[in-house]
Formats: sequence, C-alpha cells, structure tokens
Amino acid sequence: MEKMFYPDSVAVVGASPHANNHGKNIVKNLKRWGFEGRIYPINPRGEDVEGLKGYSSILEIEDGIDLAVVIVPAKAVPSVMDDCAKKNIQWMVISSGGFSEYGGEGDELTREIKEKAQSYGIRFVGPNGLGIINSENGLCLPFLNLSKKKTGSISIISQSGGLGISLMIFLDNANRSFNKFISVGNKVNMDELDFLEYLGRDPNTKVICMFIESVVRGEGFREVASQINKPIIVYKANTTELGAKAAKSHTASLVNNDAVIEGVFRQTGVIRVNTIRRLVDMARAFELPPMRGNRVALISQAGGYTVLLADEACRKGFEFPPLSDELVTSFREYVRADVIRLGNPLDLGDVLSGDAVIQAIDQVLAQEYIDGAVAVFIRRAEAKRDGAYTDLSREIYGEIGEIMKKYNKPVAVALLTQSFYLKDVRSRMSYPIYDSPEDAVEALAVLRDYYLRHS
Amino acid sequence: MEKMFYPDSVAVVGASPHANNHGKNIVKNLKRWGFEGRIYPINPRGEDVEGLKGYSSILEIEDGIDLAVVIVPAKAVPSVMDDCAKKNIQWMVISSGGFSEYGGEGDELTREIKEKAQSYGIRFVGPNGLGIINSENGLCLPFLNLSKKKTGSISIISQSGGLGISLMIFLDNANRSFNKFISVGNKVNMDELDFLEYLGRDPNTKVICMFIESVVRGEGFREVASQINKPIIVYKANTTELGAKAAKSHTASLVNNDAVIEGVFRQTGVIRVNTIRRLVDMARAFELPPMRGNRVALISQAGGYTVLLADEACRKGFEFPPLSDELVTSFREYVRADVIRLGNPLDLGDVLSGDAVIQAIDQVLAQEYIDGAVAVFIRRAEAKRDGAYTDLSREIYGEIGEIMKKYNKPVAVALLTQSFYLKDVRSRMSYPIYDSPEDAVEALAVLRDYYLRHS
Repeated sequence: MEKMFYPDSVAVVGASPHANNHGKNIVKNLKRWGFEGRIYPINPRGEDVEGLKGYSSILEIEDGIDLAVVIVPAKAVPSVMDDCAKKNIQWMVISSGGFSEYGGEGDELTREIKEKAQSYGIRFVGPNGLGIINSENGLCLPFLNLSKKKTGSISIISQSGGLGISLMIFLDNANRSFNKFISVGNKVNMDELDFLEYLGRDPNTKVICMFIESVVRGEGFREVASQINKPIIVYKANTTELGAKAAKSHTASLVNNDAVIEGVFRQTGVIRVNTIRRLVDMARAFELPPMRGNRVALISQAGGYTVLLADEACRKGFEFPPLSDELVTSFREYVRADVIRLGNPLDLGDVLSGDAVIQAIDQVLAQEYIDGAVAVFIRRAEAKRDGAYTDLSREIYGEIGEIMKKYNKPVAVALLTQSFYLKDVRSRMSYPIYDSPEDAVEALAVLRDYYLRHS
Repeated sequence: MEKMFYPDSVAVVGASPHANNHGKNIVKNLKRWGFEGRIYPINPRGEDVEGLKGYSSILEIEDGIDLAVVIVPAKAVPSVMDDCAKKNIQWMVISSGGFSEYGGEGDELTREIKEKAQSYGIRFVGPNGLGIINSENGLCLPFLNLSKKKTGSISIISQSGGLGISLMIFLDNANRSFNKFISVGNKVNMDELDFLEYLGRDPNTKVICMFIESVVRGEGFREVASQINKPIIVYKANTTELGAKAAKSHTASLVNNDAVIEGVFRQTGVIRVNTIRRLVDMARAFELPPMRGNRVALISQAGGYTVLLADEACRKGFEFPPLSDELVTSFREYVRADVIRLGNPLDLGDVLSGDAVIQAIDQVLAQEYIDGAVAVFIRRAEAKRDGAYTDLSREIYGEIGEIMKKYNKPVAVALLTQSFYLKDVRSRMSYPIYDSPEDAVEALAVLRDYYLRHS
C-alpha cells in the first residue's frame, strides 16, 4: 500500500485539455503540489495536458505505472481496469460516479468492477469519491482544484468527498493542515478499514479523523482499531431511519445498529464526536500535553463562565479539587478590590493584570493535585484603550504554551473575541485555541479518556 | 421603568479623573455613545471628569436627577442610597461588587441596601453587575470602555456581566448589535423578571436573550413569560451540583430544580439552548421568515452532509417529504453526469451552476408541501479558479434572501468556508449565515416550535 501513497508514476485516465475537464484538475493538482513522480494524462485522442505528453491508452505508456487514477464515465471504467491489468498496475483510484449510489445499471457496473479487481488482483479506492492526497509528496488526486497545503499530522478518512473538503477548510481556519486524506467513496474494493490500518502504521500520521456512514466490517474494525496506538476520532452518520435513506442514495451504505457501533467504539477507545466541527476540533486536542488524571482547574474572567464551566465539567465527570490556601493567598494581592472569592473554579474577573493571570495559571498547573485546566478568556477588541483593563489586552497565549510545556499538563483555552483577532492568535499558536467553552471542556475530556487507556 | 432606560439626567457616583478609575469609563461611554441627557460625575473632591463639572455629592446638584449609577466600594453604597433618597432619585444602577457573592460582611451590606431600597421606594439593578445599556439613546453604563455599537433588535439580560460582554462579541462577529443590555448582577432589588417584563413591552426589542444562573420567582416567571409575544431564548447555568457551588460564589444564586425550570420553560414556550453561542445564534434565527409547519427540504453540495442533515432533522422530529417528480425532472438538466439521485435530501454535489442551485432552492421553496429548508454550502477559497466549478463560486446568498421573502419561508443556511469569507458574507446579509449544519437545523426547529405556538 506504500505504492498507493508514494507512487513513482501516476496515470490520470480521463485527463484531457478541454475547458471543464475534471481529470485536468488532477494533473494541475499534481503539478501544483510538487509531485515529483512521472504523470501520464490519458484521453481518447492522446492529447497533451498542461504541457505533459498525453496518451490514448495506458497500454501505450512504455514505462511501468504504479498507480492509475480514473475519472471517466462509469460505463468506461471496466475496460480501463482491463488495461490496468495488462499493464500490471496494482493500485487504482476510481473517482467516477454513477455506480451503486445511483442504482439500476450502476449496481451491475459495481459487481463488474468488484469482480475484475478480485480476478486481476487490483486494489482500488472508490468509486464515487475524491480519491486520495498525500501532503508529503504532493500526490493530490481529487478532481477539484486544490491549493497546496502544508503537511500536517492529522490524517482524514472520509466517506464523503465534499464533506472531506469541508474538514480541510476547518483545518485551514485553524491554520493547520492534514497529512493524508482519503475519500473512500462507495468502498467497493478498499474500505475505511484498509486505510485505518495503513494510517495506524504510517509514522507521520499522529491522529486519525474519520467521517463514515457505515462500518462495513464490524469485527474487523474492532481488531484493527484496538491495535492502533494513536487517537482515532470518528463522526458516524447514518444513525437514524431517515439518515439511512439518505446514506443509501449517497454511498449505497447499509445502516448499522448504532448501539453495536457505539459498543465497538467504546471497547476500542475510539473517540466519537456528535458534531462535524468537533471532528477537527477534537483531533487538535492532541496538540496539547497529555491529561493524566481527572482533576481540573476551571479558570475564567467572567463569573458566568465559571458556573457554565463547572456545569460542563460536572457533566463530563471531572473533579475540581479546591485550591490550597497558600495558593489562593498568592493571587490575592493581584485582586483589585476584595470582591471575588478565589477558588476552583477560579474567577479572575477582577484580576486586571496579564502578569497575574499568567502567574495564576502557572501556579495552578504547578499543583500536584491538578491534572489540567480549562481557561476561558474574553477579549474585547477595544480593551487596549481601557484604563484599568489595558494591561489585560497584552497577549498571554504564548506564555500559556510555555507553561504547558513546563508542567506537561494541558490548558484547554477558549478565547471569546472578535473573529479577526481569534484568527490571528490561532495562526501564531502551536496549540488549539477554541472558540467556545464547551469545546474546551470536551477537549480535556477527550484527552483524559484517551490517556487513561494509553498510560 | 421608562425613566431607567430613557433618563434625562444621570449621576455617575464614583467617577473621578484618576487614571484607572472605573467610573470615568462610564462617563466616557456616555459621551462616546452620544447620550444627550445631562451627566454629573460625583467623587469625594468634586473634581471634573472628562470635561464635565464634578460634584462631591449628589446633594450638591441643583437640577433633578433621573438615574444614579454607583461604582464605589461596597461599604459606601448605603450612604449613597441615603443621598439618592434625599434627592428623590427613584432609579439606581449599583455596579459595585463585594456583596453576598463574597459572603460575611457582604451579606450584611446586602441586607442593608435591600432594606433601604424598600423603605425609600428606590428600584435598583445590581449590585455586582455591569449595569445597563440602551443602544437607542446611548445610555451606556458599564464601567468597561465600550465602543459604540449600532442599535439592533435583540435585547440581552445577563446574570454575568463578563458573559454578557461575550454575547456582545458574538453579535459583533455576526455584524449585529443589541437593543438593550442588562447585567442583573446579584438581583437584590430588581431581578431578571422585572427586565423580562419591561422588554416584553419594549417596542424595539424583537427577541429577548437571557443568561441566568437562577430563577428567583418561578411562578412569576411563568406568568410573565407566557404573556410575552416575542421569542425568549434562555441559557440557564447552575444546573449541576458543582455548578451550584460556583454560582453561589458568583452571584449568590441558589440552585433551582432543573426539572421544574424545564417544565416552566416548556409551558411558556421559552426556547432553551445548551451551548452559550447558541443564545445568540438562535436569537438570530428570528431574522428568517416564519416556519409554519414541520416539513423541510434538506439541501447540500456534499452527499455526506445530506446524510448528516437527515440524521439531525430526524432527531428534531422534522418530516422531509419526497420532492415531486416534475420538480426533480426540472433539476435534472443541470446535473452534469447522471450520477446523483435527486430527492429530499437533495444532493446538489454534481450541480455545477450557481443559477441551477438558485433555481433548485426557488423551486423547492415554491412547493406547497415544503415549509422551510436547510442548505449546507461548502465554498473553497480556491473554487474560483476551478474550471467546471468556477460558476459555483458566484455568490448566491443575496438571492437566497430574495427567495425567502418571495415565499415567506425560511432557509437556514450553513456556509462552510474560510473564515475571512464567512465574515465577509455575514457582514452583507440580513439573515443569519451559520457556520455549522447542526446550528442550521436547530434554527429551523426553533422557528417551527415558536410559530407552532404563536400562529
């Protein structure tokens, strides 16, 4: 499977120079992403594409081919497979739509490509997907124009190409990228499990994110997932009767019993999220140090958020031990008027010094009886012109990163601020800055559960 | 109570010219927000503040005063009340902290100001809050520097000043503002119910948002809420044992039985949200036309989102009737390859024309058997250079707004895109553009439930 993600040569079957040709986008992506292997565009007339010599058939190519990407009408796919077999191509990405998700003739074509793959010993991903991307070598095979991204440590398996694209956008907005991306499509030959297993072994993938509409092999999933020593975060759609109808049309997925799936996830330590944004948000939790225990400190600059955090943390089963007297006394000098009772949750609403906030976080994390913290900050754009509050507008997020390293404990930060400033801070920090207190608490719970199992 | 929000004159007790003086911020806010009434700064030496003549006591002022704002140490508050009584001031905003939320002496002071208000016939909001803002006349009384906002139609009642500020930031990020803002603090004299009643009558408040840690008068809440013919959206914190401890420290709130509260909310049609961002997000749902029924169309550009939307809609109890044959046939000409089965949910993933997307939404909303729609769009920043996909990058959101007006039915739009573009679209649209599909479905459910009750 290494050859699928790190091929030396790629044939793009269906790439022509015509204006709205989808295959041409694949050739453009490969060039834009700096793929250094050989690229062979294939189209009926053998026309050149984007300055690359074209061929009218795979069989015309003299050199060996590691991988064939196919974006031709569904009916033409079987004969492309015949050519691939003759050319000894073992790996294929079939992106064409028009198979089982469409019913009728599509079902017949599905059987045909399935059987051909078996008899030829071909492994393929798809059909009806966006193919794969390897950010490391520039193997970018979706038929959509994609700008080159940096390489990251999160890999994505998605049973919906378009939804997978939205996950990339979420990473973009967090100034992050992915390592490998797989749109599994109809999963006729290879399925999410093949890729899960591969990513489990892939040294550059640190966290695996999955959007799936069905688990094809439940028992296999249990075996594979339980042997992977990395976080696996899953959004499983198709959990309701009506969702099932939609899934049948989309990727021809059958419904799974959600209680069974949930059981498999729990047993194998798979982290399940219930909103799509959390797939990326919770993957990013693993940029934080490990949470080795269940004892949190809850910190906020608004009393209301201390109450909200306490509720959320209670629902997630966290303990928040009282802060020791000497610790509380050390903050007290920073409190302007004697109006706020210091404790856990720790209300810093009246602490008007950035230094004091940093000292508080440092001291709280230093305590042996605290395993991690959630901190909710509110930052008005106008605070910098604000007399007593001016000092609070100095940026403390870099220092919080340092404190985390010093104690090897996580601080899940939620920053409630104008969106341009949030974007700016996110682009400069190497850990996640959440935009809601609920996400921050959830991130700590995800870390706690993961490290409890992997300690 | 009109005099509290529309006073002709305000005394700011505790405003001095000193560098970090909180009261000075109040004077600055009043000036910056264009408050046209008289402003009297009061400080021990009678110093002028921000070019306004200062007084050493309220009693020195010759003219009548409608409203006194107090930001002096807690101990000094009772004597300010004595002065207010002598001066016949009926309305006060007491922002000072250091009362029951702090315990001990604070409890004693709380009793004292409570009794004084009763015997003097003074009504006050606070203590331990940020006071009130009326965006219409520039009455901006928080002791934080706040930039002037436009006037909006959502009014906010918050039992946490800082949390209330974050709600303003959320509105900022949506390019919206509030109408009136009330930070109720410890609710010693006036509570959320007084303000709820007032906002219910206020012609410029169209939607009421509340963050509360306790409901002081349950029976009263039921009576008041059931008579208000406007949406009331509530986030109720302090729902767990540990949240209750935090609430006691914050605003001295007692715990309410959540099942009782939930019952009151249901009976009175109060819309309860469980994440803080949804307080604003669901208030904005009312910028959409009414949802007069339970039948939705689910529309997306990615098959995965059709499945996710179907699951979410199913969980919210929506029906999504099949689209009629002739309607589906009218879209078919726009579908590039015959690869996507058209239905409800409607997968427009292969419809590569902005015109076609608009026509589809128009036609779907035109159907008698459809009461509203959810539409999830994915828009990559790079789509504009994308061959076949170029046309999809043309902006369709203004037209969707027109279609909503034409049929008087809502389309809850989620736009998954790079954050700068989302911000840009939001700033130009007069209806909410959500950033998650779950929020969009929730918005329709909120509208459905509200208009079912108010039809």
